[in-house]
Amino acid sequence: MASQNKPSIGFVGLGAMGFGMATNLVNQGYHVKGFDVFPASVERFQAAGGVAASSLVDSATDSPFYVVMVASADQAQEALFGENGVVKALPQGATLLLCSTVPASYAESVAKELKSGKSDIFFVDAPVSGGVQRAANGTLTIMAGAEPEALEKAKWLLEEMSDPKSLYVPGGVGSGSNLKMVHQVLAAVHILLSSEAMGFAARLGLDPQKTYEAVNKSDTWCWMFENRVPRLIEEDYVPGASAITIILKDAGIITSMARLLDFPTPLSAAAESMYLVALGQGMGRLDDASMIRLYYPEPVKSVKVEEDAKVELVFKLLRGVLICAAAEAIDFARFLNLDLLQFHELASNAAGGSIQFREKGLEMIQGQTSSDTKIRKDLAEAISAARKVNCPTPLASQALSLLQK
Amino acid sequence: MASQNKPSIGFVGLGAMGFGMATNLVNQGYHVKGFDVFPASVERFQAAGGVAASSLVDSATDSPFYVVMVASADQAQEALFGENGVVKALPQGATLLLCSTVPASYAESVAKELKSGKSDIFFVDAPVSGGVQRAANGTLTIMAGAEPEALEKAKWLLEEMSDPKSLYVPGGVGSGSNLKMVHQVLAAVHILLSSEAMGFAARLGLDPQKTYEAVNKSDTWCWMFENRVPRLIEEDYVPGASAITIILKDAGIITSMARLLDFPTPLSAAAESMYLVALGQGMGRLDDASMIRLYYPEPVKSVKVEEDAKVELVFKLLRGVLICAAAEAIDFARFLNLDLLQFHELASNAAGGSIQFREKGLEMIQGQTSSDTKIRKDLAEAISAARKVNCPTPLASQALSLLQK
Repeated sequence: MASQNKPSIGFVGLGAMGFGMATNLVNQGYHVKGFDVFPASVERFQAAGGVAASSLVDSATDSPFYVVMVASADQAQEALFGENGVVKALPQGATLLLCSTVPASYAESVAKELKSGKSDIFFVDAPVSGGVQRAANGTLTIMAGAEPEALEKAKWLLEEMSDPKSLYVPGGVGSGSNLKMVHQVLAAVHILLSSEAMGFAARLGLDPQKTYEAVNKSDTWCWMFENRVPRLIEEDYVPGASAITIILKDAGIITSMARLLDFPTPLSAAAESMYLVALGQGMGRLDDASMIRLYYPEPVKSVKVEEDAKVELVFKLLRGVLICAAAEAIDFARFLNLDLLQFHELASNAAGGSIQFREKGLEMIQGQTSSDTKIRKDLAEAISAARKVNCPTPLASQALSLLQK
Repeated sequence: MASQNKPSIGFVGLGAMGFGMATNLVNQGYHVKGFDVFPASVERFQAAGGVAASSLVDSATDSPFYVVMVASADQAQEALFGENGVVKALPQGATLLLCSTVPASYAESVAKELKSGKSDIFFVDAPVSGGVQRAANGTLTIMAGAEPEALEKAKWLLEEMSDPKSLYVPGGVGSGSNLKMVHQVLAAVHILLSSEAMGFAARLGLDPQKTYEAVNKSDTWCWMFENRVPRLIEEDYVPGASAITIILKDAGIITSMARLLDFPTPLSAAAESMYLVALGQGMGRLDDASMIRLYYPEPVKSVKVEEDAKVELVFKLLRGVLICAAAEAIDFARFLNLDLLQFHELASNAAGGSIQFREKGLEMIQGQTSSDTKIRKDLAEAISAARKVNCPTPLASQALSLLQK
């Protein structure tokens, strides 16, 4: 039940993440008016205790706080500034959180457009990370960049949605989105890597469940692998907890920004191309764990187990790519003048986390260069083994080229 | 009809290329005894005027000259040194040409194995390039590496199969295969690039036939594009003039040798991964022009033509990748101590040829470094445009990363 002492919150974008975030606020006792272009999503929100808004204007009217969690910058622009959009309907001095993953340049353009029209709005660039479950639990990681007054206004709301605390990203609007973007370098690479590693394991004849457990206990653990592989093993792709189109959009933000800045992000670009191939095969709406199909077209559960297959080869492939992904993300963050230790703390505890990032990544940030011949030789050995069993290795091969420089 | 004045020739491997080469020799008046593991291929050869050998031994018996044109090093090893293989059955002092594309290390191992057993055999490492039609016309490019006496013995036979003349590659056995390998860097990249460019064109809404003609008239012409795209437009994939498995094998020779030598070949590796993805989708036996399916799943003839689509974007994509492919091939050739001008002349006139290789490649060989900002910006522009129409660009993205170094 909504408390009368708590401020009303407007919300647009009741997809998987948005639904979780909005219902969490409902469960905390807030009056949340939610809108979505899909009426079914609004009905589901209403059934979960939310207030169904009949339009964007309805969701924004009398809402001193407003959260945007639509899927892209284009959708955000339409929702905020389109005819009958949110901004015109917000009350004087409202606080507006843009939680969608968007290019920093877009977040900056929102701030600019507000300044020239509705300069009373307190705007926070606040992308999130953590996945559906943490959205629903109010334990997301939020990367908030804004003017100090806006952050002050938004603080309580950010805290309701995040745990242990939101990150205040120095640099104002745009910095939050930049931090999210470099985090997504890890996400975009690790999601595909989970399929690359499990496809390799399947072709080697390794038992999928045992491989999953062995990786999670090893120094090649990463959050995405632990999270995605159960769905990959069960082929739990429809509707999918996170569709290929979502990580594809995030990968597009990384590579388009990188092209604009003339900064190389080869692993992210290789991953993006594979997601685009999947999209062309009609897989866009499937869960991203289905990327395994481009590596191993049969269900991995059907693998004929070879007793002498070596899981160490999978570790070697994972380790090399995880280290190069950490390097790509950190180098890009450095190029963007982000606070590297803040990024390191954030990503180590979010969906981009890996043991290699936490350990080797910290060394990279501290400027310790360790040209690790063993990592490179191990990766080459894994790729040679993958080639023998006809497993594609777009990420591992790219990583090897980077290590050979 | 075979002339009694001309020496008998044994031949194994009557696939697309081997059939053309062997029947060309028949047409030149030679007595050619052909063998293949597929009886249908032997029958077809007999119907074309050749002599059907009943076994490897039969093909080698009384054959003072022998040509091996099987598909791989493994097959060559079995044919030459397996039980009831060719070598034991060859007459004293026979000349043996290995025309298959194999790793240089394999050609060297053949020479070594012959020395220790049948040291009277004159062995020539003689991979070919030029495709099925030139095989049938006796106008192949042959890259022959051997001891001088063996080259002298083989000269007339090499000349019957090649035009204008065979290349004698300095360095003995293995050098021919190395030269062929660096040539195949161009082939492996250009074959996929033809699909990448045509997929991009289709997604932009360009007419396929007009795009084909425009590219062929531009500075982005390459031999593979001109040769493959008609099959791509007609979807003439089965049985296919050159199956995906063939270029995949050649790509595997490049990348495995590169890994062994710790030398980066990122474009070749990216292409290989795409061929492996296609193999996993059951496309291995299809003509390699069918790679378009991973870029644009519908027949390109079904494209709804957009009148304002710009073919210049396709040129920009092609140009950037062609230049990087030239650089990868030349750098690898330099690393292998090959004669770079010989390589340049060879590839410019063979299946790896492109205008960019001929012109920019020559500058690279002469040590003229031209950091061409325009090429890089153009390529970035093409990739951004490709991204907007959801076209994968594994080669172009890789090339851009290389140009950004």
